[in-house]
Amino acid sequence: MKNAIDREIPDEVKGRKLRPFQGNDGYLPEDRFIPATRMRAHSSSFVRQKKKVLSSLKEALVKVGLKDGMTLSFHHHFRGGDNLMNHAFEIIQKMGVKDLTVNASSVQPVHSPLIPLMESKVITNIEGGANGAPGEAISRGKLDGLLTVRSHGGRARAIDSGDSHIDIAIIGAPTADFMGNLNGTNGRYACGPLGYAWPDARMADNVIAVTNELVSFPNYPVSIPMTLVDWVVHTDVPIGDPKGIVSGTTRITKDPMRLKIASTVIDVLDSAGIIKEGLTFQSGAGGISLASSYFLMEEMLKKKIKGSWAMGGSTAALVDMLDRGLFDYLLDVQAFDVTAVNSLRNNPRHIEIGASCYASPFNAACAVNLLDTIVLGATEVDLNFNANTVTESDGRILHGIGGHQDTSSGAELSILAFPLIRGRVSVVVDNVTTVVTPGESIDVVVTERGVAVNPSSKHFDEITNNKRLNIKSMEELKNEALKLTGPRKPIRFKDNIVGVIENRDGTVLDVIYELAD
Amino acid sequence: MKNAIDREIPDEVKGRKLRPFQGNDGYLPEDRFIPATRMRAHSSSFVRQKKKVLSSLKEALVKVGLKDGMTLSFHHHFRGGDNLMNHAFEIIQKMGVKDLTVNASSVQPVHSPLIPLMESKVITNIEGGANGAPGEAISRGKLDGLLTVRSHGGRARAIDSGDSHIDIAIIGAPTADFMGNLNGTNGRYACGPLGYAWPDARMADNVIAVTNELVSFPNYPVSIPMTLVDWVVHTDVPIGDPKGIVSGTTRITKDPMRLKIASTVIDVLDSAGIIKEGLTFQSGAGGISLASSYFLMEEMLKKKIKGSWAMGGSTAALVDMLDRGLFDYLLDVQAFDVTAVNSLRNNPRHIEIGASCYASPFNAACAVNLLDTIVLGATEVDLNFNANTVTESDGRILHGIGGHQDTSSGAELSILAFPLIRGRVSVVVDNVTTVVTPGESIDVVVTERGVAVNPSSKHFDEITNNKRLNIKSMEELKNEALKLTGPRKPIRFKDNIVGVIENRDGTVLDVIYELAD
Repeated sequence: MKNAIDREIPDEVKGRKLRPFQGNDGYLPEDRFIPATRMRAHSSSFVRQKKKVLSSLKEALVKVGLKDGMTLSFHHHFRGGDNLMNHAFEIIQKMGVKDLTVNASSVQPVHSPLIPLMESKVITNIEGGANGAPGEAISRGKLDGLLTVRSHGGRARAIDSGDSHIDIAIIGAPTADFMGNLNGTNGRYACGPLGYAWPDARMADNVIAVTNELVSFPNYPVSIPMTLVDWVVHTDVPIGDPKGIVSGTTRITKDPMRLKIASTVIDVLDSAGIIKEGLTFQSGAGGISLASSYFLMEEMLKKKIKGSWAMGGSTAALVDMLDRGLFDYLLDVQAFDVTAVNSLRNNPRHIEIGASCYASPFNAACAVNLLDTIVLGATEVDLNFNANTVTESDGRILHGIGGHQDTSSGAELSILAFPLIRGRVSVVVDNVTTVVTPGESIDVVVTERGVAVNPSSKHFDEITNNKRLNIKSMEELKNEALKLTGPRKPIRFKDNIVGVIENRDGTVLDVIYELAD
Repeated sequence: MKNAIDREIPDEVKGRKLRPFQGNDGYLPEDRFIPATRMRAHSSSFVRQKKKVLSSLKEALVKVGLKDGMTLSFHHHFRGGDNLMNHAFEIIQKMGVKDLTVNASSVQPVHSPLIPLMESKVITNIEGGANGAPGEAISRGKLDGLLTVRSHGGRARAIDSGDSHIDIAIIGAPTADFMGNLNGTNGRYACGPLGYAWPDARMADNVIAVTNELVSFPNYPVSIPMTLVDWVVHTDVPIGDPKGIVSGTTRITKDPMRLKIASTVIDVLDSAGIIKEGLTFQSGAGGISLASSYFLMEEMLKKKIKGSWAMGGSTAALVDMLDRGLFDYLLDVQAFDVTAVNSLRNNPRHIEIGASCYASPFNAACAVNLLDTIVLGATEVDLNFNANTVTESDGRILHGIGGHQDTSSGAELSILAFPLIRGRVSVVVDNVTTVVTPGESIDVVVTERGVAVNPSSKHFDEITNNKRLNIKSMEELKNEALKLTGPRKPIRFKDNIVGVIENRDGTVLDVIYELAD
């Protein structure tokens, strides 16, 4: 057979079939999405068009062929200030599309406009996590299908492995260039890292970036590269509200009880030999966690110890530690405040990482597995150290998992730190309403009324031998709380399963039932 | 069914099958390599071992299960100084393994020790390209299977799409940390970018990094991330010879004829309106290409024009232009000299990119398609502007493709510039021995005896209207050369096909036969 330039090409040579040349833009694989990789097999004629920029998200959704039953993904780096998911569903609702799955790294209270769309079956499944009113609506049976709750690492794993297939990823980008190089560090809606959207960008069949600021090529630094972005929507509709994106209000707690808990955390870390040269540490933005970071900083300065790296969600506290040389590097998948966003922009030792690198358990490595310690909260913890972060004591879904499963499973020493009683109910219970993090991942529970160490912890002896610590069993903590609160009102559920809690490896830890009351 | 933490998990809910939790390290997908992504599904217990570092490449090859018939990949950033591929095959030969495919971004003359391994059928197929003696050996029929010649973009596409499956990628890394974050910018064998190895790292079933310098975690900057690297071999066997890695000798030509050709190139660019604000440009390290870069720099300074970005293979010339502000950014997939390596290390506007981003035609974007112009050479060009870079006029395979197909297909204006007669034979011929780049990709041929413009070029009129240029047809150039050289001796081939030339999209442009003489 002769090819397009008149050369004789055999059909097959030495067992290999040959496709003859058909002209530079002549050949396009039959399957536009090459299944082995989800590499988007654009023809070179598409790539050479250089016309990715569209002026509305609706145009992009039409171009990628949005239809009933598809899965759309979103990221939550704009946090309480996110406007993009609501904007997208305003358009989608008008397009008359139904039975969609939302795969979002987090659904937030700001996304309450989605609740009526659950009722009208525009949205029938949600993957990721749901906070506040959207979560509560799911507890009340408003979602026709299922809420699949995944940790940040579990979500990355599910996407990377194909367990969760995304038809259309919609990525809010504070800045983009005309070919789709994206970053979150610049622009008036800067949010810092875009790490939760990295798996979406790589694996989705179609990737739509939405930006309010189109910058010159190449947009630098590159967080998500142009190789993965199909369309760039340049719109005036704000993707986020700066006031909600970064609050600037993550301040250290002033509550003496919480400060005491944080101080006990440092004592526990010290007993377990964690506060040593080369320490690695992750801290969240919660009051106790943040106070622990500050106390740890003081302890490191006192001991003249230098850590190796810390990990975000990044805060002013972690940036302060980085700037003072207490760690060499700050690895970061999301920013919690303005200081953290500015640090990522300006400090080359503040390194953006993707969700897979942060926490996916099936990669060749993930950062959480290299942590020396992590300090976390919980809504409930039971006698087996199983922790709940998703449902409240009344059974309502009000939170996601975040990195709870990932960091506690990965870290050398995992600490749950919380006031024993919250809103007149005990956090320590016989059995958690919903198991979110299995007890085997938790080493220590720190409360203002005592410290309980998991008998299966490698550090049990070291910690329980510290006479300064008020060591108790979980049973003791539970009984103390019970005396103060009285017994909890049992929660009444219907038979309808509304949610599934996946472990980071995709196995199921627990299911959530619809509330009866 | 109850899961490992005693929760009742239904087999199925709302049509979705559930896998019950089996303990934190209990579940491992049946297929270690999740086919949808080639994500390496390590169990979390593997990932938490933190024991990736091995002391010999042999140990790593045993661990990943090297066996007959596998495909091993290598990159050529160490260029003439590469020692790793020879070292690997010394080990492999002793292990008694046979029938291997080598997928290398380039096989170089320094890899001549592989020739006897072709004869003994340890190596039976080669993908990528072959330069010098290994190429000639293939022309003489020493390879039992096929040489599949791919451009840099075509190789990335083949790997990304699964057309070329890699069992084991062996990546030489000037520095690595204990989890496998790699870069090529630091260490005594620094080679600059590792971009050609990026597709290998992402897609291979097993990734072995080999380093002489183990640095503290996290190795920064990260070129290839730990998420993709299975094993880190820390060895004293040098991965490269600094003298060959970066030559430091890429100097501008002093030959007046070549300088004249380079100067004519600038005239052609000017006629076609390419030398304008925001210009984008790639230059190779060849004498004429390098001289063109310098002349372009002069022209830009004269015209007070600033370019947008330039692309490497990077050289001191391109770094000079970057440092002088003639371009904002330098995108780079490989470094050709010490100045370029140092620039990548020190200048944040010198950006490392991977081979897919550089040139793969089936991504959502690639950089070559955004080039305004490219200046290239060729061993032969024919009357249809088809170019040959792989075989010499005597039919021997002596070179690879590099980015020739990619850049010429992608750039707005592609120029082939060469002295009309090379080693007493004409470069312009009736029919090239081997078609490597189809004529439709080439706009202009520049020689010391005249300029030929492809009638299908969009810029035909602009360039042919420039009266300063000595415009000729390809026929005229051919006849002029013929008068000087006399007719070429025809090449005699056997029936045996030894090589296949793929276009960047994987279709076949031409085949190469075994030499009869």
